[in-house]
Order: sequence, then structure tokens, then C-alpha cells
Amino acid sequence: MAPIKFYYDLMSQPSRALYIFLKKAKIPFDDHQIALRKGVHLTEEYENNVNRFQKVPALVDNAFQLSESIAMFRYIAAKEQFNDHWYPKDLQRRGRIDEYLEWQHSNTRTTCSYYFILKYLKPRMAGKSPDDEYVAESSKKQMDETLNAIERLWLHEGKPFIGGSNEISIADLFGACEIEQPRIAGYDPTVGRPKLSAWMKSVKDQTNPYYDEAHHYVNKLIMENPDIPEYLKGISV
Amino acid sequence: MAPIKFYYDLMSQPSRALYIFLKKAKIPFDDHQIALRKGVHLTEEYENNVNRFQKVPALVDNAFQLSESIAMFRYIAAKEQFNDHWYPKDLQRRGRIDEYLEWQHSNTRTTCSYYFILKYLKPRMAGKSPDDEYVAESSKKQMDETLNAIERLWLHEGKPFIGGSNEISIADLFGACEIEQPRIAGYDPTVGRPKLSAWMKSVKDQTNPYYDEAHHYVNKLIMENPDIPEYLKGISV
Repeated sequence: MAPIKFYYDLMSQPSRALYIFLKKAKIPFDDHQIALRKGVHLTEEYENNVNRFQKVPALVDNAFQLSESIAMFRYIAAKEQFNDHWYPKDLQRRGRIDEYLEWQHSNTRTTCSYYFILKYLKPRMAGKSPDDEYVAESSKKQMDETLNAIERLWLHEGKPFIGGSNEISIADLFGACEIEQPRIAGYDPTVGRPKLSAWMKSVKDQTNPYYDEAHHYVNKLIMENPDIPEYLKGISV
Repeated sequence: MAPIKFYYDLMSQPSRALYIFLKKAKIPFDDHQIALRKGVHLTEEYENNVNRFQKVPALVDNAFQLSESIAMFRYIAAKEQFNDHWYPKDLQRRGRIDEYLEWQHSNTRTTCSYYFILKYLKPRMAGKSPDDEYVAESSKKQMDETLNAIERLWLHEGKPFIGGSNEISIADLFGACEIEQPRIAGYDPTVGRPKLSAWMKSVKDQTNPYYDEAHHYVNKLIMENPDIPEYLKGISV
């Protein structure tokens, strides 16, 4: 049986989460790392043969094409064998992880990537416009609310992982990879959030060397960003 | 075994989708219809005993509290017996439905509800502000793009239901209930979209009388909205 083909770019948050999961859970895959900056995903070839939405990550299993990182994870979970803690079969533990995976769309995913785009990507790609600062500040507020909710409502039970879990799950990976992104724009998510801070360190410790490998470009961009103070560059989340 | 407690308000799109599903699939539940407009979800009692995010829909199964409509659906799917077409066990058919359920968060769910809020709710609740029209128009553009994607990429295979399915699934219900919402603000989603139009009719036909029952308030608001031309009021999606 041929392994699944996995298409990804490590600049994409959900791509990183799936990459780390596949590596750490020892699930074989056919590696298709592509470069969004070169527009590979915008070609007709990619649209027809990989993903009709022209996005990463994407998966191809023989003739079956699937996008949406969390749907891809579910597909892999139904097909492959791996340690139960990633996605427990226990109904209530799985329910809590599913709850985070849905909650994150309009929260962690939206707010952290929007801030990154407004504060870092847009000024470099499309130039600055007069209301950038105002919009970025208002988006920072939403991101802060999301991260406070993670501190207060997802890591509140004195357990190290999301939803009161003692062991790492796929929800932790999707969460942490999103929160790495605004760091490129100079935002430090750990300030004033001791639980989130300890949790991000745990996610990294539990999944290295793959976590650092997946965040190689992210960390490089942080080091090269002249707007980020030197003392922050030395801090590894 | 006591049935699950289901908390919902029929003005909430995902509440309607789950309500119709539970009724149509004959899954017993303890009915807790609440009124968002009365702020029941904002009480300490609701926060502590039903849902820490203070939202609807929500589910309580003995001491286990769960929010996020799609996570709730998955929990019910793992626990209860119902006809396979709602959420097929076949890996690829389920994968396609999961793909829609994730895709819709930043598309159908966000754009249709945002337009409804900007165009209908905000002017009535918080008063008008000078840039309302401009923002509503830009949000209409995003909603149009989403609905065009449903026409072009989700209903493209000549099959009546989402993702090329011959039978109705939970994805169709979540989709249709979102698209009903901007109708309250006078938007007709069916114009120029023959596949979407036929699909919405099929979803309704397959799930009545519960579809109409769940949309009773929605249809009432449409009839009472003086900004909606009379000829549109007679059109039932």
C-alpha cells in the first residue's frame, strides 16, 4: 500500500502541526514540501491533481484528494495506527479535543494569523497604508483575548495539556503552531501567561527534534527581523 | 441511561442544524431551548453548569459539558445509532464531509453570519454608524465568494448534496442553516446559483417538518422586515 502524499509548506501553521505529528507518530508519508512563495499551489497542475482550493496542507491518497488540515488528520487517524494519546478513543477525552479543534478556527487560527499578516506580511508584500497600525492594534486585542482564553479556559485544570489532559494530543500541536506565527512579527505570547508559557515549552519538548525542525524558517525570520529587540530573539518559546 | 441535555436557541444557525439532525435522526434529547435575547447564556449558572464559553448550542451528558456544534455532533455520532448517510463510515465519503465541516468555519459560517450581523443586527441593536454600508458591502463580497465556491467546488459533481453525495449528510444541514441567516437581511442566496438553489430545496425537503419548524423565527423575521421587497418574502428557499 503506497503511503499518502503530503503537500505542505513549513511557513503554514497547520502544515507544521501535521508535519510534526506525522514525524513524531512515525506515520509514513510521501514528502511533497512545496514553496508557497513560488506559487506552486496556484498552478493548474496543483489545482487539478492535488487540491481544488489551491492551498496547503493537502493530502492525496491514490486518487483521493483531501484538504483542510483537521479533516486530513481525521482521515489519517481512521486509517493509520498510532499512540492513543494523540487522539484518545475515550469518548469524553476525544470530545474535549474535538471541541478545541473546532473552537480554534475562529479563535487561535484566525486571530494569530491575522495579526501576523497585518503586522508582518502585508507591509512587506503590499506596502504600508495609513490605517495599518490601527487595524493591527485592534487585531492584537482579539489575539490577546484568544490567548487569555487559552490560559483561562483551556489550560485551567492544572494539567499540562489542552482540555485538562496529562498527555499531548493533536489539539496541542495545532494550538502551539498557530501561536508561533505572531512571534515573527515581534509578539511574545508568553508574557503574563504562565500556563500558556509552560504548555508551549511542553509541546516543544515532547515533539522535538521535529518541532524545532518544522519551525526552522519561523525562527530564522524572527532572528532576521530588525523590528524585534535582541533580548526577545534569544527567547525560545 | 438519561438522554443528553441539548441547549439551543433557534436564532443560532448551528443550533438549528443540530436540532433538525436530532429530530430527523430520532435521537432522544432533553430539550433546553433558551432565549439568547434574555441573556440566559450569560448567567453564572449557565457558565458553571452548561458551557464555560457562554454560548449556544451546548450539550451536557451527566457531568460532561461540551460546546462547539461540530464537536457535539461528533460526540453524538460516537454514542448514538443513526442512519449511515448522515455521517458515512466509508473513509473517503466521511473525509469529504469532514473537509466541508472544517472549511465552513472561515467561509460559510463567518461570511453569512457577519453579513447578517452588519446589515440586520447591528443597526437595530447598536445604531447606525457612517461606515456601516461600506463594511456591509465588503462583507457581502466575501459572502458571495463563499456561496460561489459552494456552487462551483462543493456541488460540482452533478450530485444533489455536498461533496458529491447522493444522500443528505450533516454537512448539508450545517451549510443550509448558515445560508438561511442572511435572508433575514434581505439577501437572496439563490440568485445566479442554480445548483445551490436546488440543493437548499433538497435539504429542506429531506428534513421537513423539522427544517421549517427550526426556521420558524427566521421566516417570521423575514416577513416582518420592511426593507425586504414583498416579492422576495414569498420565496421560500
